[in-house]
Amino acid sequence: MDILIINGPNLNLLGTREPGIYGDHSFEVYFKSLLKAYPDHALSYFQSNHEGAIVDRLHEEGFEPGGIIINGGAYSHTSLAIADAIRAIDRPVIAVHISNTFAREDFRHNDFLAPVCLGMITGMGLDGYRLAVDHLVAREKELDGQ
Amino acid sequence: MDILIINGPNLNLLGTREPGIYGDHSFEVYFKSLLKAYPDHALSYFQSNHEGAIVDRLHEEGFEPGGIIINGGAYSHTSLAIADAIRAIDRPVIAVHISNTFAREDFRHNDFLAPVCLGMITGMGLDGYRLAVDHLVAREKELDGQ
Amino acid sequence: MDILIINGPNLNLLGTREPGIYGDHSFEVYFKSLLKAYPDHALSYFQSNHEGAIVDRLHEEGFEPGGIIINGGAYSHTSLAIADAIRAIDRPVIAVHISNTFAREDFRHNDFLAPVCLGMITGMGLDGYRLAVDHLVAREKELDGQ
Amino acid sequence: MDILIINGPNLNLLGTREPGIYGDHSFEVYFKSLLKAYPDHALSYFQSNHEGAIVDRLHEEGFEPGGIIINGGAYSHTSLAIADAIRAIDRPVIAVHISNTFAREDFRHNDFLAPVCLGMITGMGLDGYRLAVDHLVAREKELDGQ
Amino acid sequence: MDILIINGPNLNLLGTREPGIYGDHSFEVYFKSLLKAYPDHALSYFQSNHEGAIVDRLHEEGFEPGGIIINGGAYSHTSLAIADAIRAIDRPVIAVHISNTFAREDFRHNDFLAPVCLGMITGMGLDGYRLAVDHLVAREKELDGQ
Amino acid sequence: MDILIINGPNLNLLGTREPGIYGDHSFEVYFKSLLKAYPDHALSYFQSNHEGAIVDRLHEEGFEPGGIIINGGAYSHTSLAIADAIRAIDRPVIAVHISNTFAREDFRHNDFLAPVCLGMITGMGLDGYRLAVDHLVAREKELDGQ
Amino acid sequence: MDILIINGPNLNLLGTREPGIYGDHSFEVYFKSLLKAYPDHALSYFQSNHEGAIVDRLHEEGFEPGGIIINGGAYSHTSLAIADAIRAIDRPVIAVHISNTFAREDFRHNDFLAPVCLGMITGMGLDGYRLAVDHLVAREKELDGQ
Amino acid sequence: MDILIINGPNLNLLGTREPGIYGDHSFEVYFKSLLKAYPDHALSYFQSNHEGAIVDRLHEEGFEPGGIIINGGAYSHTSLAIADAIRAIDRPVIAVHISNTFAREDFRHNDFLAPVCLGMITGMGLDGYRLAVDHLVAREKELDGQ
Amino acid sequence: MDILIINGPNLNLLGTREPGIYGDHSFEVYFKSLLKAYPDHALSYFQSNHEGAIVDRLHEEGFEPGGIIINGGAYSHTSLAIADAIRAIDRPVIAVHISNTFAREDFRHNDFLAPVCLGMITGMGLDGYRLAVDHLVAREKELDGQ
Amino acid sequence: MDILIINGPNLNLLGTREPGIYGDHSFEVYFKSLLKAYPDHALSYFQSNHEGAIVDRLHEEGFEPGGIIINGGAYSHTSLAIADAIRAIDRPVIAVHISNTFAREDFRHNDFLAPVCLGMITGMGLDGYRLAVDHLVAREKELDGQ
Amino acid sequence: MDILIINGPNLNLLGTREPGIYGDHSFEVYFKSLLKAYPDHALSYFQSNHEGAIVDRLHEEGFEPGGIIINGGAYSHTSLAIADAIRAIDRPVIAVHISNTFAREDFRHNDFLAPVCLGMITGMGLDGYRLAVDHLVAREKELDGQ
Amino acid sequence: MDILIINGPNLNLLGTREPGIYGDHSFEVYFKSLLKAYPDHALSYFQSNHEGAIVDRLHEEGFEPGGIIINGGAYSHTSLAIADAIRAIDRPVIAVHISNTFAREDFRHNDFLAPVCLGMITGMGLDGYRLAVDHLVAREKELDGQ
Repeated sequence: MDILIINGPNLNLLGTREPGIYGDHSFEVYFKSLLKAYPDHALSYFQSNHEGAIVDRLHEEGFEPGGIIINGGAYSHTSLAIADAIRAIDRPVIAVHISNTFAREDFRHNDFLAPVCLGMITGMGLDGYRLAVDHLVAREKELDGQ
Repeated sequence: MDILIINGPNLNLLGTREPGIYGDHSFEVYFKSLLKAYPDHALSYFQSNHEGAIVDRLHEEGFEPGGIIINGGAYSHTSLAIADAIRAIDRPVIAVHISNTFAREDFRHNDFLAPVCLGMITGMGLDGYRLAVDHLVAREKELDGQ
Repeated sequence: MDILIINGPNLNLLGTREPGIYGDHSFEVYFKSLLKAYPDHALSYFQSNHEGAIVDRLHEEGFEPGGIIINGGAYSHTSLAIADAIRAIDRPVIAVHISNTFAREDFRHNDFLAPVCLGMITGMGLDGYRLAVDHLVAREKELDGQ
Repeated sequence: MDILIINGPNLNLLGTREPGIYGDHSFEVYFKSLLKAYPDHALSYFQSNHEGAIVDRLHEEGFEPGGIIINGGAYSHTSLAIADAIRAIDRPVIAVHISNTFAREDFRHNDFLAPVCLGMITGMGLDGYRLAVDHLVAREKELDGQ
Repeated sequence: MDILIINGPNLNLLGTREPGIYGDHSFEVYFKSLLKAYPDHALSYFQSNHEGAIVDRLHEEGFEPGGIIINGGAYSHTSLAIADAIRAIDRPVIAVHISNTFAREDFRHNDFLAPVCLGMITGMGLDGYRLAVDHLVAREKELDGQ
Repeated sequence: MDILIINGPNLNLLGTREPGIYGDHSFEVYFKSLLKAYPDHALSYFQSNHEGAIVDRLHEEGFEPGGIIINGGAYSHTSLAIADAIRAIDRPVIAVHISNTFAREDFRHNDFLAPVCLGMITGMGLDGYRLAVDHLVAREKELDGQ
Repeated sequence: MDILIINGPNLNLLGTREPGIYGDHSFEVYFKSLLKAYPDHALSYFQSNHEGAIVDRLHEEGFEPGGIIINGGAYSHTSLAIADAIRAIDRPVIAVHISNTFAREDFRHNDFLAPVCLGMITGMGLDGYRLAVDHLVAREKELDGQ
Repeated sequence: MDILIINGPNLNLLGTREPGIYGDHSFEVYFKSLLKAYPDHALSYFQSNHEGAIVDRLHEEGFEPGGIIINGGAYSHTSLAIADAIRAIDRPVIAVHISNTFAREDFRHNDFLAPVCLGMITGMGLDGYRLAVDHLVAREKELDGQ
Repeated sequence: MDILIINGPNLNLLGTREPGIYGDHSFEVYFKSLLKAYPDHALSYFQSNHEGAIVDRLHEEGFEPGGIIINGGAYSHTSLAIADAIRAIDRPVIAVHISNTFAREDFRHNDFLAPVCLGMITGMGLDGYRLAVDHLVAREKELDGQ
Repeated sequence: MDILIINGPNLNLLGTREPGIYGDHSFEVYFKSLLKAYPDHALSYFQSNHEGAIVDRLHEEGFEPGGIIINGGAYSHTSLAIADAIRAIDRPVIAVHISNTFAREDFRHNDFLAPVCLGMITGMGLDGYRLAVDHLVAREKELDGQ
Repeated sequence: MDILIINGPNLNLLGTREPGIYGDHSFEVYFKSLLKAYPDHALSYFQSNHEGAIVDRLHEEGFEPGGIIINGGAYSHTSLAIADAIRAIDRPVIAVHISNTFAREDFRHNDFLAPVCLGMITGMGLDGYRLAVDHLVAREKELDGQ
Repeated sequence: MDILIINGPNLNLLGTREPGIYGDHSFEVYFKSLLKAYPDHALSYFQSNHEGAIVDRLHEEGFEPGGIIINGGAYSHTSLAIADAIRAIDRPVIAVHISNTFAREDFRHNDFLAPVCLGMITGMGLDGYRLAVDHLVAREKELDGQ
């Protein structure tokens, strides 16, 4: 199964930025462990601080089979453009947040991406990405089994 | 690892109630498959339509080691008493919703339990419980490994 | 026709509590007159101050034929759990308030039960229960006649 | 007993307009059946799309004995002038809505007429008018009996 | 000086309606005393319960010299159409309320007419009309004197 | 094609009223030029300051073939009755505003008519009516061509 | 009759401050003309920029016979202490604003003093004080006449 | 004097739960010292995590002479049912909070119980219960003395 | 122990002002009885209608040992300056209201002083001051005992 | 006349994305028909999913003669940067939406671009672009004719 | 150049009050260093905890040449009277806050003084006063140079 | 000291765009004068209309010693992504606005960047940048001196 992980703004700083909230592992290191854990699936990874670039990427890959995992970062709370892009494409998308956004500032409680995704996983740390991959794989199996 | 699943109001009707939203499996059937999938862990299950009974149960088991998975149902959006109970206990709690509450009525977007839990998993169907179990187990391993 | 009347919190005090607003008849006395007025129908009556007990009762009888009349009392304005229970069951439900809730405090203007019931009758005093019974009977006749 | 039914804007289209919501009977046909059902009472009927005409009519008949049933249609949600007229007159008034306004758009949840009437009946279809007539008659009997 | 008094909905009931708030004199009686008090000025009077009729009248007389005194009644709080009519005409307009609208229900605190008039007089009883006439006359004298 | 133009309150003053905002042509003069520009279509024109009269007219012509162009003036921002009338009829309706209502006072930003029309044209001056006629004609051609 | 005029903050600058809004006469000059116009009444005048001093003055003179005219200036929109003082005393109070506060900034639309006064006169320029004096005198005559 | 203390949800954990906020004494220990301090009065104590059980208890004892002290815990901020129960009974009730709820989360600032009690004592720690007892006793003495 | 009681605006009128709400005893009389009740403590009393004077007094005595009891009156609901002063000083402060502010107008429900004090006592009448003194004394004893 | 059409995010998917709302024609095909319809004018077309790129383009061409038509897509509801760019340039701009944004989700009702454009055309499908071109041409003719 | 610095409530406690937020220097010491740094300018300093005294001072010096620097303290967030005073005078005013008010409590985000001043400097510590002096001097030079 | 100035959207038009608000100097010319004024410091300058490009630049230089001055333009009011970037980096940042944003449209009053910067300087024209540089230099000196 093809699974694309999209990380939004400031997530390139993982491991550097506010480690009390986001942990001290860079995403690249984590992603390698994820590749190892799912040797039978094609996982790819894209990060951008540009709202438009995320929209572009969703368009490019959004009509392919597989799944998408998106951590929109701050754009989760402000970007109707990304939400519209998710609404426009065919491929199932899961929203992930590393920290528990509901335990943080008020402006992080409103999420434009969650309602247009299959669902959301928040507050599980980097492990949230693994859970999302796991669910996409399980879901495909179930759909295939029907 | 001891993992207690608490289901809130109306979740006893799973499989019967609005299958378009909640699916057509009863929770009991699903729970059996979960027990099979995690033979090395002690999973237990409690359902109540009574806010006070959920608070009572959280008190009883909230100072034991292990984890708790709570699907507060409608009480997620109205019960400060359950939120206070989660805040008061030691045991880590994960909030789960079967449907994507953010894609439904406005009153389901406000969640009193999510901010006092480790995090939340929504919209993954019954599979959300498995992901929560999985995360609790993985998290314990990581803490043990430290 | 089987018709269950559910009365919510503090309605056990009818006749005692604020007679200027709620009248000075106890519900039991009124219910007897109602039984007399509808000798051909099976009317039953349940009162509880417990939100969960009301949810339980709706589940127990909500998949039977007939109708339900609910005066949620204060829970009308706070209980999403009862609203979800009404949404989940098959049996038609009518919401009743004895006083005109719209002429009282602001917090009584928001009603979580009304939108998930067939409709609502407010401000008709105890006579509102009779009107609700009457409508359920008339409605069944009309459905039967189709 | 003299009972005046006042129907507000667009209710002249009953039977034609959105039958999924309002049914497919014209009010005139329904009114005839109502006349038959209450041969001992003087029922009359007035419809207008003009807010001012409804205020005028309330003034003309509002100091006579009997009762008034008003379905303010959209003016229920916008007309303080009609609400003030009801407040100004002596004759008891009941508010009726054919559909369950609380299950529809947000702007139909605010009702300026309900708080100044005896009470409100919503969502009972055309049968709501009959229930209102019934209550006015029952109420008069009770007042007479005191 | 030509001075037109426009009274809005329900003000035809003055003397009859809620005398505790509006007093027990009909406007006609009061208006006669006003005519006597200002023998050198041409005072006229118009009342309507129809928003559109008030707009029509403002158009008809709004480009004549003189002044207008408007008690919009409930339309003060809902009618942008009357406010737009006042904005459109040349003749100075003063808003009057008999009761102190700020000491009454919340919905009477918002006034669409006040901001497009010269100013507003509230809570002075019927005497408010006399004060408004007086000010229009004094104002004209002052403008003439410049 | 039959096209009815309905102008709401204060639009009879066009050319007279606030020319800085609404221009200095009367609508009658403009309407003649419109008739000339569309010799093959039956254009008619109705203006009223009465909310109820606009509702009446929509009912009278709303079940005929053709199109309607409505400039609700201030009623656009307050009249649920007109919105309900548009919702109730079959004939396609386009909302027009001469000025750019979004660049004016806050209370003009909320438009009750726009959501129940095909769409809205604002800020194009009187030319907005021509564009609306043009679209109705083009739309009919396209529907005929299907 | 004893009539005390209280002017709040910044009104000592009348004639100097923003003459486009407040005119170019100092209040002292205006007050002399007022004294001349009412030779049979005892008018006095107090101005302070101190909220507490206005409260003090209301206490000192608030239990004497006569009337009070208050232009609270900016304190009208922020001072619950002055409002409480007016509520506490016996002497009738009229609120006056020189400019039409409803045609100005939003924060001037909320008035804490108006609801606890007999009523309010706004937008009549300095003439508003004369109208208030006039009403107090007329009101006393009427009360005496009863 | 009979004084009943009712403690709401999570207050059974006193001494265990968040000692930084609630202190490290269990309520039972504290209650014993209270009994000693008021040997001439009949103090009793009830705790429940069930909203309905608190309503039930208020009904049972609410028509007896004496006083009630209620710490509604989280239900203070969500339970209209308990507020209605207090409104319905005769016995005077004082609301107590151990912590200063106004210095904590926003959702603890709204208190449904305070407006229907005699008054409220917050932020005095466990000593708040003693002050409430003291006031009830003093108040009875004063009433007796009248 | 040194205990300073600060009373805010309009509280000098106690006994005179709205006795239905505030009772008919002057504070001076009450204060004498308080002095008698606590012969071992140094109680002093200050009242001002000036926000600034209350801030000044808090500064003067706020770094001394002992306690302060403040009834901010209307300033409780508007004065951030007094709140900042309490935040700035060392001496513990208790907020008192004679009436139950939560049972009165909405604007009395927001309290700027309560969150920066130890806590608040409302609705206990003048007895609230005694309770506050009592708590300050008991609290000191407890701190000394540690 | 030089007319630039700017399409915002996700509009590159026209014909593919949600055809029920946006139709099944790609914009490129439509644009060709537009070129044919206006052979005497220089029409150009730019699409980007990048907010910054749209701002850049507005700067580049915003000081040239001609007109601009902008469909900001989701950025219409979130981008103050594009609104500021339109405010900053000289060239007249018309806002276009293909669907009737007012009949869709609430977040599409707020439009930051409409108030800084000449006006807006919504809900006319792709034909909205033609109407905008038409108006720009007509407007230039009129300005030239003055 | 004459520059007056006005400090509002609680700023007399600088150095004493919450040193974590406001630093541990008294303003007097800082002011001396400022005098040294600007030997060619006439700097003066005024502090008051009284809103009215600040208004008085602004009136006294507000029509003199030079500049004013105001740190309104808590009055920045509540005083329309001071804002009106600044609006009324001729002399340019700059608002200063020592701490970053936007990083603190919500009620400090609303600033009534900032919109009527030239601008605002926040969060620069005591150095903010120097920057304000510097800007006033630079601005005068530039105006002189024109 | 290394000081980077970042200018956000539309600030490349300085001197061209709305000179009444932003002045008629281009930023390049101003920046040269700034370089001259601070010959001992390394000032650099970056402008972009792309939110993502500003985030990128903050990441690149945000972990270097020195300071950053940011004028986020419209992104100040909409970009949580830039705010998160500032929060994530180590280098101190000062927010600058040329105009007094608090004296302009409501949507410019909310600033996402100010709370995560050291502080903000608004309304000082281009001189605000100089003041920010000055403060960064002074602040470093002070830190060095500790």
